Amino acid sequence: MLVNGKAYRTVWFEKDRVRMINQLLLPHKFGIVDLKGVKDVADAIRNMVIRGAPAIGAAGAYGVALAALKGEDVQKAADMLRSTRPTANDLFYGIDYVLDALKGAEAKQSKAIAIKAAEDYANWSARACEDIGHYGASLMGEETNVLTHCNAGWLACVDWGTALAPVYAASRDGKKIFVFVDETRPRLQGAKLTSWELMNEKIPHAVIADNAAGHYMYRKEVSMVIVGADRIASNGDVVNKIGTYEKAVVAKDNAIPFYVAAPSSTVDLSKETGDSVPIEERDESEVLFVGKERVAAPGAKAKNPAFDVTPARLVKGIITENGIVSPLDIRDVFAKE
Amino acid sequence: MLVNGKAYRTVWFEKDRVRMINQLLLPHKFGIVDLKGVKDVADAIRNMVIRGAPAIGAAGAYGVALAALKGEDVQKAADMLRSTRPTANDLFYGIDYVLDALKGAEAKQSKAIAIKAAEDYANWSARACEDIGHYGASLMGEETNVLTHCNAGWLACVDWGTALAPVYAASRDGKKIFVFVDETRPRLQGAKLTSWELMNEKIPHAVIADNAAGHYMYRKEVSMVIVGADRIASNGDVVNKIGTYEKAVVAKDNAIPFYVAAPSSTVDLSKETGDSVPIEERDESEVLFVGKERVAAPGAKAKNPAFDVTPARLVKGIITENGIVSPLDIRDVFAKE
Repeated sequence: MLVNGKAYRTVWFEKDRVRMINQLLLPHKFGIVDLKGVKDVADAIRNMVIRGAPAIGAAGAYGVALAALKGEDVQKAADMLRSTRPTANDLFYGIDYVLDALKGAEAKQSKAIAIKAAEDYANWSARACEDIGHYGASLMGEETNVLTHCNAGWLACVDWGTALAPVYAASRDGKKIFVFVDETRPRLQGAKLTSWELMNEKIPHAVIADNAAGHYMYRKEVSMVIVGADRIASNGDVVNKIGTYEKAVVAKDNAIPFYVAAPSSTVDLSKETGDSVPIEERDESEVLFVGKERVAAPGAKAKNPAFDVTPARLVKGIITENGIVSPLDIRDVFAKE
Repeated sequence: MLVNGKAYRTVWFEKDRVRMINQLLLPHKFGIVDLKGVKDVADAIRNMVIRGAPAIGAAGAYGVALAALKGEDVQKAADMLRSTRPTANDLFYGIDYVLDALKGAEAKQSKAIAIKAAEDYANWSARACEDIGHYGASLMGEETNVLTHCNAGWLACVDWGTALAPVYAASRDGKKIFVFVDETRPRLQGAKLTSWELMNEKIPHAVIADNAAGHYMYRKEVSMVIVGADRIASNGDVVNKIGTYEKAVVAKDNAIPFYVAAPSSTVDLSKETGDSVPIEERDESEVLFVGKERVAAPGAKAKNPAFDVTPARLVKGIITENGIVSPLDIRDVFAKE
């Protein structure tokens, strides 16, 4: 997508290094970081310089390629990259994609193979999101008010986005789209990243406290909810940013369709239900502090789960790069591939 | 309640002025403000130096009494106080309580009558909350995990609290209570005020992002939800802090009982449903900024409704000073009085 008139992806390979947009600086500053080693890539994922399931999938793929380029042990590199964050499936998928390409490769070709595989993966991922955009846009009327949670825009992917790709596609088709942007505590990716993306694309929107999503759904000011996903289990349960489950329940209470937009790399058929997916517990300081200001009482403790489980029964459809699928059909659709 | 070993109410009359705890300084500093005129009291309510439906009800009563003491026009004072915030019924109830006491009073007695009426109102309100505590505690088992939203503790009342009064009563009865404290964006009254109150009373608790409430309910780690109310309509709909509706829907989805704790001063039989209660829209800066830090993208807009409507069907019971009432019986129970 364009930033100040120039096309960017969130992460890419350049010469002998991985480069990525530093998402910790947004929305106030746009900057690029250069990562020279696998550990740097792993740290960037762990510290959320890059975040969002498809984006960290591509970062993982590039990380393995970087290890291959430097003649390092790719299995060790893969292990280090896998250990950064436990919930998003795309991370493991992206890493495995490059490892699979290297299977049986001759040593002298492995550098070129690994880099090509990582580039192929990133290109596939960007294309998948673009396709998600077109399928998702087909669900939108000429005037549609979308509510979204967290950032599942192009910053969360290689390009285009998952939940926001349909917004961009529909807007470019000339539809009148308004977006309610959940600010998404504790890390405020909605306020910081989604509002920045929508400002760039000149799409009308309002940031709201997460608490206000229900209010606008109750008043029927929301036409549809679209969110991304970090992992989709075999039974169609969706693991996504903390708070997603609440939005899904409230959408159901108001008969507002609740969609999940995710590429096939997010599906994990090895998990029977969402309840068996590991939920990352992040540091309590993300809740107790906002920026440098402590908001909670001195001595108070916090709990900070980063994801939750939305049961399949609450999801109207999953928008994939191959079309819109009922969550109840996930097992059948993806087992065939 | 005790602060550093000394008993306080949130608001009281002393000599020729109204005094109140400055809630804008908490949790980092405990300070008292002195208000010498009605306009000062009105400003304190508007700017949320004092907040919480029962607390601003008492502040309104004291404000009218202050006008009477100074020989000012009490109707004009009442109008100014009423215009500060539109949603909480207790504000109007407290103001009217003192005005009613002054009806037909001789001029030379009006000062004494007004002050006595305001004191009576505050005493009644504190006593009502204490009674709510005992009724609410009777609902709790020996080990109970309560989830609460915003601050409906003693800081929101004259004393004791509404939603937290049962927590205090049960804890003093020796029950083992744990409280999940929704931080309650945008103003973070949960993180700032509820956690401060619970620290003072040594009650185990964890602050959570509002988004995480659903996660803990889904995992059945919450035994019951208790919140306060700003207004209860004739049909039992509850108007309370933004986000309350979401918590109620999610509690229902998990068969967790959802209780509202409120004194009778919160009931407004003139409103047929919650949808006819005015919802205060506060400044967008409360969402766009946290403390002095702007979190949203430059140029982004926000919407900031301060309250929402929880339909009666989602409320298991309303804990009043006279016992626990079904929301569907509100009209009958309060029409008799």
